[in-house]
Amino acid sequence: MTSDALIITDPHAQLARLGLSLPTAPKPVAAYVPAVRSGNLLYVSGQLPFQNGQLLATGAVPSLVSVETAREAARQCFLNGLAVIADQLGGDLKRVRRVVRLGVFVQSDDGFGDQPKIANGASELCAEVFGEAGRHARAAVGTNALPLNATVEIEFLVEVD
Amino acid sequence: MTSDALIITDPHAQLARLGLSLPTAPKPVAAYVPAVRSGNLLYVSGQLPFQNGQLLATGAVPSLVSVETAREAARQCFLNGLAVIADQLGGDLKRVRRVVRLGVFVQSDDGFGDQPKIANGASELCAEVFGEAGRHARAAVGTNALPLNATVEIEFLVEVD
Amino acid sequence: MTSDALIITDPHAQLARLGLSLPTAPKPVAAYVPAVRSGNLLYVSGQLPFQNGQLLATGAVPSLVSVETAREAARQCFLNGLAVIADQLGGDLKRVRRVVRLGVFVQSDDGFGDQPKIANGASELCAEVFGEAGRHARAAVGTNALPLNATVEIEFLVEVD
Repeated sequence: MTSDALIITDPHAQLARLGLSLPTAPKPVAAYVPAVRSGNLLYVSGQLPFQNGQLLATGAVPSLVSVETAREAARQCFLNGLAVIADQLGGDLKRVRRVVRLGVFVQSDDGFGDQPKIANGASELCAEVFGEAGRHARAAVGTNALPLNATVEIEFLVEVD
Repeated sequence: MTSDALIITDPHAQLARLGLSLPTAPKPVAAYVPAVRSGNLLYVSGQLPFQNGQLLATGAVPSLVSVETAREAARQCFLNGLAVIADQLGGDLKRVRRVVRLGVFVQSDDGFGDQPKIANGASELCAEVFGEAGRHARAAVGTNALPLNATVEIEFLVEVD
Repeated sequence: MTSDALIITDPHAQLARLGLSLPTAPKPVAAYVPAVRSGNLLYVSGQLPFQNGQLLATGAVPSLVSVETAREAARQCFLNGLAVIADQLGGDLKRVRRVVRLGVFVQSDDGFGDQPKIANGASELCAEVFGEAGRHARAAVGTNALPLNATVEIEFLVEVD
């Protein structure tokens, strides 16, 4: 982190600076919800790399999807989670005190080991958007199968005001 | 959710209405325990689809186990977790304030993508038993291998009184 | 647990009795951090079985790695997590009130089901080091791929003073 990062306090301004806008938060489904708050912790359901209603990447890395494309998918999962968080906070991401944990699942060929590079697509954007408050704990793992054959799924734990 | 759901307050009555009874909670094993409470949060260990001492389903979906059977297995995992929760709360599930998160692992063939349908076996029962308090965040993923070759494993995070 | 376990209060003494010393905690990387505290909960990032800069085991169980070697790897993951926790607590593991949850991922051949035996390598050491405070909830699952092709990855949730 540069010292610049210490004075970032407005995630909305950071998103604008990055040329990014929040997608529409997914609607609640019957059986579960996009996020649940307990105390100051907000648990966000696993997010897939949907962009305008389509998955950015499906299938396993690296046989069907490149590391670079999977990184983009991880970044999109992060943006979708951000939309859920904003929706829960009345649109105000400044109420995020700390991103506590990301759980990252990457659809992988057997024995593939570059999940951290892919997860960094989300983690680096998180640090850009939230500065110090975006420095999170993380578990990144591979798997042979994800919902809708998505390449990446990410869940979030965030401390909020 | 119908407006009916808003007035459900007794999970025991709901279980009875569904013709369900709680299984016996699994005994503590040497190295870890069925659940740990920290503050108002109860963390429940990963539950397998045991019913009367036997796994309801083993092997991967869909080559060895159908989606429908895997849904039943997810439902059984939920019931077993409910038994653990009840055991921790002196038998009184009304002390559950909110089901916060379910983590669902489904043993899957490579690239299979219908984990959400299977996880709904647990999520829908959760909503039936707890009403509004049962609407939870969820991460559902696939995997190529689970303990004892079980088809489904589910862990729980619950806010309690 | 024997009644002895109830009087264990000094994890440092227990480590010494076991002939173990803490490894150096991994350094923070750019995009995420080894641990984040929120309230009294410390979330520790997924730990790999590094020992003196090398992974103790790579590849899947049992085709490439034996259950016994994977157990040793799980034990090493636990030690590495312990080093992170100590580092966050100014070196004083007595400030651990309770190990709340371990999340254990074991790189597995398809359908392999002995993840619990492997995870016990971590869970049993946890009970030895912390006594009653070390009795944790756990989710142990298989996967076909982990970062750097590691055989085991473990994340931690710990309640601290």
